[in-house]
Amino acid sequence: MSDRTTIGVGMVGYAFMGRVHSQAWRSVGAFFDLPLAPRMAVLAGRSKERTEAAAAQLGWDAVETDWRELVKRDDVQIVDICTPGDSHAEIALAALEAGKHVLCEKPLANTVAEAEAMVRAAEAAPGKSMVAFNYRRVPAVALARRYVEEGRLGEIRHVRAQYLQDWIVDPEFPLVWRLQKDKAGAGALGDIGSHIIDAAQFITGQNVVGVSALTETFIKERPLAAESAGLGATGTSATGQVTVDDAALFIGRLSGGAVASFEATRFATGRKNAMRIEINGSHGSLAFDFEAMNELWFSAGGGGFERILVTEPDHPYVGAWWPPGHGLGYEHTFTHEVKDFLEAIATGADPTPSFADGLRVQRVLAAVEQSAAEGSRYTNVED
Amino acid sequence: MSDRTTIGVGMVGYAFMGRVHSQAWRSVGAFFDLPLAPRMAVLAGRSKERTEAAAAQLGWDAVETDWRELVKRDDVQIVDICTPGDSHAEIALAALEAGKHVLCEKPLANTVAEAEAMVRAAEAAPGKSMVAFNYRRVPAVALARRYVEEGRLGEIRHVRAQYLQDWIVDPEFPLVWRLQKDKAGAGALGDIGSHIIDAAQFITGQNVVGVSALTETFIKERPLAAESAGLGATGTSATGQVTVDDAALFIGRLSGGAVASFEATRFATGRKNAMRIEINGSHGSLAFDFEAMNELWFSAGGGGFERILVTEPDHPYVGAWWPPGHGLGYEHTFTHEVKDFLEAIATGADPTPSFADGLRVQRVLAAVEQSAAEGSRYTNVED
Amino acid sequence: MSDRTTIGVGMVGYAFMGRVHSQAWRSVGAFFDLPLAPRMAVLAGRSKERTEAAAAQLGWDAVETDWRELVKRDDVQIVDICTPGDSHAEIALAALEAGKHVLCEKPLANTVAEAEAMVRAAEAAPGKSMVAFNYRRVPAVALARRYVEEGRLGEIRHVRAQYLQDWIVDPEFPLVWRLQKDKAGAGALGDIGSHIIDAAQFITGQNVVGVSALTETFIKERPLAAESAGLGATGTSATGQVTVDDAALFIGRLSGGAVASFEATRFATGRKNAMRIEINGSHGSLAFDFEAMNELWFSAGGGGFERILVTEPDHPYVGAWWPPGHGLGYEHTFTHEVKDFLEAIATGADPTPSFADGLRVQRVLAAVEQSAAEGSRYTNVED
Amino acid sequence: MSDRTTIGVGMVGYAFMGRVHSQAWRSVGAFFDLPLAPRMAVLAGRSKERTEAAAAQLGWDAVETDWRELVKRDDVQIVDICTPGDSHAEIALAALEAGKHVLCEKPLANTVAEAEAMVRAAEAAPGKSMVAFNYRRVPAVALARRYVEEGRLGEIRHVRAQYLQDWIVDPEFPLVWRLQKDKAGAGALGDIGSHIIDAAQFITGQNVVGVSALTETFIKERPLAAESAGLGATGTSATGQVTVDDAALFIGRLSGGAVASFEATRFATGRKNAMRIEINGSHGSLAFDFEAMNELWFSAGGGGFERILVTEPDHPYVGAWWPPGHGLGYEHTFTHEVKDFLEAIATGADPTPSFADGLRVQRVLAAVEQSAAEGSRYTNVED
Repeated sequence: MSDRTTIGVGMVGYAFMGRVHSQAWRSVGAFFDLPLAPRMAVLAGRSKERTEAAAAQLGWDAVETDWRELVKRDDVQIVDICTPGDSHAEIALAALEAGKHVLCEKPLANTVAEAEAMVRAAEAAPGKSMVAFNYRRVPAVALARRYVEEGRLGEIRHVRAQYLQDWIVDPEFPLVWRLQKDKAGAGALGDIGSHIIDAAQFITGQNVVGVSALTETFIKERPLAAESAGLGATGTSATGQVTVDDAALFIGRLSGGAVASFEATRFATGRKNAMRIEINGSHGSLAFDFEAMNELWFSAGGGGFERILVTEPDHPYVGAWWPPGHGLGYEHTFTHEVKDFLEAIATGADPTPSFADGLRVQRVLAAVEQSAAEGSRYTNVED
Repeated sequence: MSDRTTIGVGMVGYAFMGRVHSQAWRSVGAFFDLPLAPRMAVLAGRSKERTEAAAAQLGWDAVETDWRELVKRDDVQIVDICTPGDSHAEIALAALEAGKHVLCEKPLANTVAEAEAMVRAAEAAPGKSMVAFNYRRVPAVALARRYVEEGRLGEIRHVRAQYLQDWIVDPEFPLVWRLQKDKAGAGALGDIGSHIIDAAQFITGQNVVGVSALTETFIKERPLAAESAGLGATGTSATGQVTVDDAALFIGRLSGGAVASFEATRFATGRKNAMRIEINGSHGSLAFDFEAMNELWFSAGGGGFERILVTEPDHPYVGAWWPPGHGLGYEHTFTHEVKDFLEAIATGADPTPSFADGLRVQRVLAAVEQSAAEGSRYTNVED
Repeated sequence: MSDRTTIGVGMVGYAFMGRVHSQAWRSVGAFFDLPLAPRMAVLAGRSKERTEAAAAQLGWDAVETDWRELVKRDDVQIVDICTPGDSHAEIALAALEAGKHVLCEKPLANTVAEAEAMVRAAEAAPGKSMVAFNYRRVPAVALARRYVEEGRLGEIRHVRAQYLQDWIVDPEFPLVWRLQKDKAGAGALGDIGSHIIDAAQFITGQNVVGVSALTETFIKERPLAAESAGLGATGTSATGQVTVDDAALFIGRLSGGAVASFEATRFATGRKNAMRIEINGSHGSLAFDFEAMNELWFSAGGGGFERILVTEPDHPYVGAWWPPGHGLGYEHTFTHEVKDFLEAIATGADPTPSFADGLRVQRVLAAVEQSAAEGSRYTNVED
Repeated sequence: MSDRTTIGVGMVGYAFMGRVHSQAWRSVGAFFDLPLAPRMAVLAGRSKERTEAAAAQLGWDAVETDWRELVKRDDVQIVDICTPGDSHAEIALAALEAGKHVLCEKPLANTVAEAEAMVRAAEAAPGKSMVAFNYRRVPAVALARRYVEEGRLGEIRHVRAQYLQDWIVDPEFPLVWRLQKDKAGAGALGDIGSHIIDAAQFITGQNVVGVSALTETFIKERPLAAESAGLGATGTSATGQVTVDDAALFIGRLSGGAVASFEATRFATGRKNAMRIEINGSHGSLAFDFEAMNELWFSAGGGGFERILVTEPDHPYVGAWWPPGHGLGYEHTFTHEVKDFLEAIATGADPTPSFADGLRVQRVLAAVEQSAAEGSRYTNVED
């Protein structure tokens, strides 16, 4: 262990994503035999006090209050971007420019144009880059892809993907930044719809080539969030407009001839994180629901669905962990992500999902929005 | 019992639907306290020999080889139409004209025009009429409607309905009549898609008002079926063209503001009769899968989903049958159907689903086909 | 059909079991191609008026108010005993003596001695005899047996069987006859425990050879039932003693070396008819729960459990019914039972479960009671 | 954070349990706001080289090759015992004697006598002590206990607990230490049966007061494990005797009047870590299976079972982690364990499960073995 080269990580942002990325960096070396030992070097955030507290709790050695400083530091070789989508492009471009490796949270950017710039920069830069579609590293999802690659499903006919949550069902839930287009880029579509697009493309090995879409905002005005209220309103009853979609539904076609159905919503009462995908092929089918993330359901040859407990040593990533039947949790998907990223850096391989993969998702999102705006007209995804 | 008035039933067709309708007529009186005792009077079919054999096995007192004769008989007050869709309109119109009550299998007709004529005839005729969307009489589906009516779901936000089968996945499966547009009207869309449209409208009490659709025929040529081959081909390798959809996907809107997603396919390997519907409202959600037809899943107020075993005496239709936990099967939905039809006849009430309900489904099917033909453009359902 | 020989059935009792047996006799000929056509000839019950009403509703041609008369009738070749256990022996002996075939509800009798007498009579008589352990004819249970016979499970190691209901959880539930030892013989043990013993022996092909048991009566006094109250008490608060077990638990060994665990209770709140059995063998495992009676779960070679929807044409009994995915219900187990009984009569085969099988279950029940009475001491089942 | 007092941890053993305990110590501070910050000070193991490698990978600052040295160190305040059961007593006694806090893996000891000595030492010593029945800290299990405490189940009638694994089904699986009585104390009974006894007692708040038991060793001889073979045999076909149970079944009674059924086995083909418990009370029921560890099933008042996804902020331990629907894994149970232990140390409270709780489980195990040895006779658990 002691003779492993260490590699410094600098992370920008310490909210939900920062917390889970920290756990990944903290744990990965204890479970995987890595060619590079990550060092949790620097954490960047705007407030010095809060960033220091976060660094102390999460285990980062130093802090910066300006991400531009973090990007320049010599003890940082990997920049891990855990901020909202509106700053991804700027930080990633600067980090790549500075010769760093970049791990960027999803969606890659808030617009196709930004994403394109990021892809160009990534291709030109010496550093490795990866977009954090963590659901690819759920062992069951990785096993699904393996099954498709092995031909166990035959020709893919159907993809049926949903990402269902319910956290804004209450009309009194406030107008947080995720409900504002300028900050979040999109609503359910970008936040969670992007995951199921990526998962569908990853598992099937096919691209979404065209879509027909509907979007809806059920609650058009909401109370201002406490912080916003303080700035923009004097009364407690101040409300603001929701400028993103609450739900997005689209149907479409994949490059290999399958038809597909997608739905992303935060109004599915009782569904908490139901990232579900079912794939039907000419010889077999698969079904997955993240709410039971250690299970993959597989039907061979039209037979019943087998509940595969994806906890066997020969299942993807699982050998590093616990004995059969001892399940993993949400955070492990990130641990697997940084493990693969570190290995790619060490070996010089190109990590996936690449920024180009992230752009491909972005283009599907753009086609969805365009179709929804044009009477659900079938819209080709730009190549 | 002996003082109950009897009512004569004449059934046209004795294939799959005729067999299950026979079981319904045979059983209904033993379980429900009916105002009218059905008498299984006459069975009509084209071949005298085969119709007589069927009548003997299924328990019909007499046979006719021309449905026109059946319709005229004095001992027939109810005409039960169990033929393919291309003859529904003609038989129903004649039966209504003859003053009979008419129970007609779904879909109501193969075209909107036929269905419209049937609705006009039904409204003008003295007899009662009903279209046999039997899934409304699954106790769990009827309970779902009750829950919506009672307001337990609040405002409906999402409908997510699929009808998944896999019986034609094999490209060697022959070109049966259900794969020919002139006989079947449509493919998966009309045969099973019609059921989920009706179920969605029934449970929510809302109409589908617009759709955007894709259809696909995965296997475009198939071997001729043995019988067709004998007529139209000399070699065993003769094939014919599939002229209906293998799968239909559509998204749309309901009259009450919900968004909806529908899918009907016969290519979902491993799914045998997965007529599934999930409904999310502002206060609760429901989920149902016919493959587990005695269960309804209900989430109240964002809590977990409760698996309601729909076998309690106070659940719809269930009190007539067995103790809790002793489930019902597919055929019972038809027994419930004829029970409700007999009661409506006896009391003079208008049975549902009416021919008008059948027409409404037909118009959704037409809008789906139009949208699919016009680049998935959002298409309003005719009123 | 017309040239089939008919065979007259006389049924004794028309309560729950009589209703479901009637549905079986009424339906069986429409679905199975039988060598003998059953005729629902005579129904026997004590009250003329109520028996006539039941016969009219259930479809029996004639009535008797004394089962002794039914047993003598020439138009009765099969006597179907649907009374409580305390009259099984007397009726069966008389019917066998009269040369009739006998189908007898379970448990075979209330005591081992009675059951022994019945077995002797059955072996001596010309008529065929069968005890109605209907759960053997759940298609999923019959498929389970087939899998064991085919060796798919390897050596059987474990049987884990439970029959869980909850209908007497409420202490105010009255003292019905099933809670009185003189009428019911035993409580949960005899009523539902007998089913899981038979199912375990049937599926594994092994006998229970010894047991260690506990029984419990949670509610020792209950209000008298309305009818009893009228006879035996003047006030509404009259109570009587529960003289049977509310729950019985036992562990034991099977003849082939497996260990087994059994539990029968009517106090499992929320479980309605959870007749569950799990079997683990050296090469595979099976699990079944009657609350989802169309499903059998099978694990091969230590892999995940496959949910087999037991609705395929090649599954036991299923070919006679509906297409895949269109499930059956509780009553179909009885239809399968009379189908097999009629075939055995026609071909001269010995139907199963035989009275000897019923006696074997009775002896297990006796060993359970003896063990429970003797400090749970391991007690061999008499051979 | 910086002003928190740190507390030094010394861990003995670095195999499976050591790895998961390390992850707990490593992670706990990042998620819970702790009064004491654990420092991973010393790891003890026999081989210097392997212990150093483990320390490097798992993140321990120093190593010892003799646990006696670890126990003496000033930088160690907590001794965490992750060795096989035959050394628990000796290490724990020494650590308590040295004034340390002790966290000891389960089962507490290999005999009741050892466990009694440990309880006496724990009661006399200044340090806190805890036995690591980690399943108490599955959020769903902790929620189950909360429900019982709140009276939602009413009077407990039934406990039905199983711990099913299948890792030694293959007769060629070697004779590892867990199959040798002198090292492991017992087989499935002690290793996994102890967990379900503790869980049953924890959730219900009642003790097991008597048992009737069967045990079985299906495979009586096995190949020697590679390491043992090297020492004790010259040929590759050398085998040794399995001296522990492969499976243990017992039924019994709880102090509050419930009856209970337990089963522990490593021969349940297809079950990987099915630690299952179902509890039926007069007003409600609960069911849990560790293979779906983020779910608790609850039936209120005889209604259907609700699948509670135990990922809500107000569920035990969950608020520290991720948003709803983002499940936890096996290792989190240990993180919760050390969190509670650290809090107890800081506040002076007595942590649970205490050594006395561990002894209580040990006494049940002893009664099970005694009953099995004496013809399953009902055996009281010593008080």
